[in-house]
Amino acid sequence: MHRSHNCGELSESNLNQEVTLAGWVQKIRNKGFIAWVDLRDRYGITQLVFDETRTPKAVFKKSTGIGREDVIQVKGLVIERESKNLNIPSGGIEILVSELSILNHSETPPFTIENETDGGDELRMKYRYLDLRRNKVKENLILRHRVSMIVRNFLSQADFIDIETPYLIKSTPEGARDFIVPSRMNNGQFYALPQSPQTFKQLLMVGGFDKYFQIVKCFRDEDLRADRQPEFTQIDCEMSFVEQKDVLSLFEELIQHLFQEIKGIKLNEFPRISYAKAMEKYGSDKPDIRFGMTFGKLNEIAKGKGFNVFDSQELIIGIAVPGGANYTRKEIDNWIDWVKRPQVGAKGLIWVRCNEDGSYKSSVDNFFNQQDLAEWSKKTNAHAGDLIFVMAGDSQNAQTQLSALRIEIAEQMGLRKSNEYAGLWVTDFPLLAWDEDSKRYHAMHHPFTAPKNEHLDWLTSTPEKVLANAYDLVLNGNEIGGGSIRIHDTQLQEQMFSLLGFTKKQAKDQFGFLMNAFQYGAPPHGGIALGLDRLVALLGGSETIKDFIAFPKNNNGRDVMIDAPSKVSDDNLEELYLKSLPKKSS
Amino acid sequence: MHRSHNCGELSESNLNQEVTLAGWVQKIRNKGFIAWVDLRDRYGITQLVFDETRTPKAVFKKSTGIGREDVIQVKGLVIERESKNLNIPSGGIEILVSELSILNHSETPPFTIENETDGGDELRMKYRYLDLRRNKVKENLILRHRVSMIVRNFLSQADFIDIETPYLIKSTPEGARDFIVPSRMNNGQFYALPQSPQTFKQLLMVGGFDKYFQIVKCFRDEDLRADRQPEFTQIDCEMSFVEQKDVLSLFEELIQHLFQEIKGIKLNEFPRISYAKAMEKYGSDKPDIRFGMTFGKLNEIAKGKGFNVFDSQELIIGIAVPGGANYTRKEIDNWIDWVKRPQVGAKGLIWVRCNEDGSYKSSVDNFFNQQDLAEWSKKTNAHAGDLIFVMAGDSQNAQTQLSALRIEIAEQMGLRKSNEYAGLWVTDFPLLAWDEDSKRYHAMHHPFTAPKNEHLDWLTSTPEKVLANAYDLVLNGNEIGGGSIRIHDTQLQEQMFSLLGFTKKQAKDQFGFLMNAFQYGAPPHGGIALGLDRLVALLGGSETIKDFIAFPKNNNGRDVMIDAPSKVSDDNLEELYLKSLPKKSS
Repeated sequence: MHRSHNCGELSESNLNQEVTLAGWVQKIRNKGFIAWVDLRDRYGITQLVFDETRTPKAVFKKSTGIGREDVIQVKGLVIERESKNLNIPSGGIEILVSELSILNHSETPPFTIENETDGGDELRMKYRYLDLRRNKVKENLILRHRVSMIVRNFLSQADFIDIETPYLIKSTPEGARDFIVPSRMNNGQFYALPQSPQTFKQLLMVGGFDKYFQIVKCFRDEDLRADRQPEFTQIDCEMSFVEQKDVLSLFEELIQHLFQEIKGIKLNEFPRISYAKAMEKYGSDKPDIRFGMTFGKLNEIAKGKGFNVFDSQELIIGIAVPGGANYTRKEIDNWIDWVKRPQVGAKGLIWVRCNEDGSYKSSVDNFFNQQDLAEWSKKTNAHAGDLIFVMAGDSQNAQTQLSALRIEIAEQMGLRKSNEYAGLWVTDFPLLAWDEDSKRYHAMHHPFTAPKNEHLDWLTSTPEKVLANAYDLVLNGNEIGGGSIRIHDTQLQEQMFSLLGFTKKQAKDQFGFLMNAFQYGAPPHGGIALGLDRLVALLGGSETIKDFIAFPKNNNGRDVMIDAPSKVSDDNLEELYLKSLPKKSS
Repeated sequence: MHRSHNCGELSESNLNQEVTLAGWVQKIRNKGFIAWVDLRDRYGITQLVFDETRTPKAVFKKSTGIGREDVIQVKGLVIERESKNLNIPSGGIEILVSELSILNHSETPPFTIENETDGGDELRMKYRYLDLRRNKVKENLILRHRVSMIVRNFLSQADFIDIETPYLIKSTPEGARDFIVPSRMNNGQFYALPQSPQTFKQLLMVGGFDKYFQIVKCFRDEDLRADRQPEFTQIDCEMSFVEQKDVLSLFEELIQHLFQEIKGIKLNEFPRISYAKAMEKYGSDKPDIRFGMTFGKLNEIAKGKGFNVFDSQELIIGIAVPGGANYTRKEIDNWIDWVKRPQVGAKGLIWVRCNEDGSYKSSVDNFFNQQDLAEWSKKTNAHAGDLIFVMAGDSQNAQTQLSALRIEIAEQMGLRKSNEYAGLWVTDFPLLAWDEDSKRYHAMHHPFTAPKNEHLDWLTSTPEKVLANAYDLVLNGNEIGGGSIRIHDTQLQEQMFSLLGFTKKQAKDQFGFLMNAFQYGAPPHGGIALGLDRLVALLGGSETIKDFIAFPKNNNGRDVMIDAPSKVSDDNLEELYLKSLPKKSS
């Protein structure tokens, strides 16, 4: 071992001990006759002192040659520090160095290795190994490690078995695009990388494993939006003989346990609301419930009063902004401009000031009287001093747009507190979504999701009305997981595939093994998958998952540090019975 | 929840309780007026009783319709069993069923779900989800789970951080063949799946993480020998500021801890021997040291006596078979035939009986006298009553062949006891191996392995003599892991690449990021990777890794259950700028 102690563990209790430390040079303060060096490793920082009078001559001379980020090893005596730093555990001592060896020199790093660095995103990604030295990034990855360990131990204690499912599987056209892997031994054929271990975990239930979990990489060849990665990590779980409420209560407990262990926070019970309710009250299937401003539906009281904008629209909804009555006209106009931005896409906003004296002032006073506006205020839970914003449009757009406004206002008002957490279960999603392009239903969740028992009959008559036995876990407005009770019956699974437009042959080719399996005593089962990247980011007080991944890819799916993907030789391709095509001009 | 208890937890202490169980029908004994059903789940078996007189009529009638592997749910009373089965915890009770519901019917399984099954390998792989129900397979995977958890908790306690490295990385021609993954967003370019996270874990050390681990899938596109998988799992570790002995003692402790926890066995200290010594004494770099029969070198005393077979060969070595003097001529001839099999490939065997009276009888009495043979016996550590087998040939063949014989004899003599375990470290491997075909050196371990410090000068003069700071962990004759102290110096790494025949450009293209990283203060570091599949198999008392993988592939790299790999559409390929080539006639 190149050290007797690490740089985080020495304190006054080690005074007068001879120790050996190794680490990186974080900082040098050189006064000529004396120099202090901060030596850093993963565990902390210890101050070294090189003193013309007390340090051996040769060592002192050598010390003048060291620079920032050099890796050095020192031997020396633990002595008391004159000016103590009470902020760090080792701040009371320093090492009077008697031996110094330079283990490796460092070029001047392209950016400073400090919490607040001068390096831009691209630069830090290219030199990710240096970025990883920054305390912030290091802490993020240590947090991720802790979360993984806590999750594994919690689930293991709850009788879940960690089972590795394969990475080289079969390509299926359902869902997102697969990454495919040419097989040399089976020429002309391809593996696919899993988008999730979905079918395998269901087969494990058929195999009697009862409770399965895995922290597992998944892959999706999607055009990357910001903060999406082509490879991402799931906490993947499945249980047999359970109903929805069993899954929900266990995983609620897991999340509560995590917050207790990591942040010392006791989370409140997670409310459970239906998808329909979530859309009606928040305009979102992943609402942030840390604050109010729930939607009021104004259709009945706002239509038929001669205001054409309302009369012609499907949905009229409003929210009450607490204390918003004192917004200036300019402030109100700013919000109107904000919703008109292409990212939101609304046509405009109607507003109503709820004055302290009980009167109302609105942008539509020509059409609505005080009595009308009082009813709006009731529907939106507005109080004197609040401001009501109203939006009208087709249901989907109006909800989405007002939801965006609700979140942005809350953000600006400081209602989305970073140290406050609220979990929520959203349930009863529609099973199917009609796709106008392909003229067929798509599975909202995935094709293995069970319809609610009481809706089974509707599958043939009114499939669009069928709700799924599916659930999403939402935390502070972020979807951190989702799951469902699965179909475990061959006939029902066949019916589902047929609704999704699979021919019998297609269903058999792609999922024959699963439907076969269901014929040999498949138990009722269900499960959930949580996004580890996002969960850790939230626990770390951030919404940027890249900061919590050791070696993330950029928005083009590239690892700029290793420069991947890259070309391979024609020989290599030929061995796989493949040939590169020139890019089509577009 | 579809049950109040599982099938393994009820005992006499639950008598007279009303319980709900769910599981699979393992066995039915039907006497007409009474039927006993063994209900199975992951946790155990509980006996149900359906009795014409005590069971509700409708339920009794329904019970006659259930069959093997049906999934049922029952409600009933825990009662005392008349003929108790003391072998299982629930053997003292049975459930008098009052309600029965059939959750899912099962077709007759294609093989019996018992420890000793009538299903062949192919059939069981095709229906792996049924094979997984067999106790043996289930126990293997539960063992794997336990091993993973123990390893993770041990390493986490020892300050290792679990860090996920990427799966979509860069293809490098060094080492085995990569699986490659076409990138749609970067057309004409490819990711590779990692053969190991080697470079990433080294970058984590440069990044200051000090101690890293990961239980991680790795991929190799090799022609599969028996018991090799295209995807396999490694316990992957790396440490900074360590020397060889630090790595060895920590991972020896890990293995000892595992055996203590899993099997209650305290392993002896693992001897550490050099590669040269291992070859000299055992003819193998992964010797089984649970028994003796070490090699004696006879060159000096067996050459020059007129026996041409010996005089013309490079190496003459022998082993003493304990108690082998009473082998019949036929038995001896069988061994001679055995070594002549093409799998071993020896020309023959010389034998010497060490008679109880101190005399010797050999197959070469014409050339060697009693005095000569006495010296052989001394060199091979033979005693009166033993048989000496002697082999001659070029060094490599003679060693390999005699090693095979040694293992087979030990196997047949019952010296390779399945409940006995002995670990061993083999160190000081040659750094380089000359490849006659490509006329260049190959790295024995990998290009990042550090030469021994005291051999650095030889790199330019006599590279073939340089030993590596590398080590293998061997258990009962199986290599279960290997590692090395790594190069952390840019110049030395460049020198190494140049020895391996890389041009400067090739080295920079493929490993530029690593050599760059080394310029910014890389710490001395080293690590190890253990093969989880093999380790678990050994802990499970088997040498067949397939039995310890939930969904293994066959020797053609196929998953016969899901039928992967498979064809993908031309559209799909075109999107990746690829075209399938017809297979060349061969």
